[in-house]
Amino acid sequence: MQEQKQTEREIKQIIDTCDRLIQAEKFDELVGYYSEDAVLVVKPGMQAKGREQIKQAFIKIAAYFVNSIKPLEGKMVYLVAGSTVLVLAQTFLEANDTAVKNSEFSVERRATYVFSKIEDRWLCTIDNSYGTTLLEQ
Amino acid sequence: MQEQKQTEREIKQIIDTCDRLIQAEKFDELVGYYSEDAVLVVKPGMQAKGREQIKQAFIKIAAYFVNSIKPLEGKMVYLVAGSTVLVLAQTFLEANDTAVKNSEFSVERRATYVFSKIEDRWLCTIDNSYGTTLLEQ
Repeated sequence: MQEQKQTEREIKQIIDTCDRLIQAEKFDELVGYYSEDAVLVVKPGMQAKGREQIKQAFIKIAAYFVNSIKPLEGKMVYLVAGSTVLVLAQTFLEANDTAVKNSEFSVERRATYVFSKIEDRWLCTIDNSYGTTLLEQ
Repeated sequence: MQEQKQTEREIKQIIDTCDRLIQAEKFDELVGYYSEDAVLVVKPGMQAKGREQIKQAFIKIAAYFVNSIKPLEGKMVYLVAGSTVLVLAQTFLEANDTAVKNSEFSVERRATYVFSKIEDRWLCTIDNSYGTTLLEQ
């Protein structure tokens, strides 16, 4: 149980760090928290694979939102199985929406992230902020 | 892309096999498809950890449903990151419901399963048939 709490703390810290790096648009540093063969669901039906593609995807996402992205995590559930963790997270994405005349908006999502312990470091292997809504496509 | 399809096929086959083993109540054989430190979400707030606990949980679940369980998978989405795969699955659980006088019922869920390649075999490390609804607790 101690170990579970420790793992949860470590992963929460990484997610918070990544959220700050996304907001600061420090994408080189950001992708260091992803595994080499990580998958990011950019939008339903579109995936970025590996650090370089993930970096390029974040650059495009930031541009689309006129560099106003601010991800925030709400409630989180951690399912810990040794060196693999599934995180379920309520996520709020705040940004200016270019499509509706730069008005502020906030999107609530239920994300699923997988983290794997690789060479003694927790890295994000699967980043799917759309959760099970991908089944609706 | 070939490799992705191959992985999806392998994992689909394992899930189908496990569904059959659950229906046939062959739980010793079933838990061989789980990793040693796998986690099964028995119900919100209750987890079984490791093969022995998972086996005991399945025995209790089968008894609760008067040995009438029949899991079926609907639409599935596979997010493949090297030796880690997140499966999003529409799941239908058919059974007699003891609580409502043995009437048949079917529950639709959106499950999240994590599979990891361990010693060249795909094993289920996280089995969460409740998906992101765990965030509602």
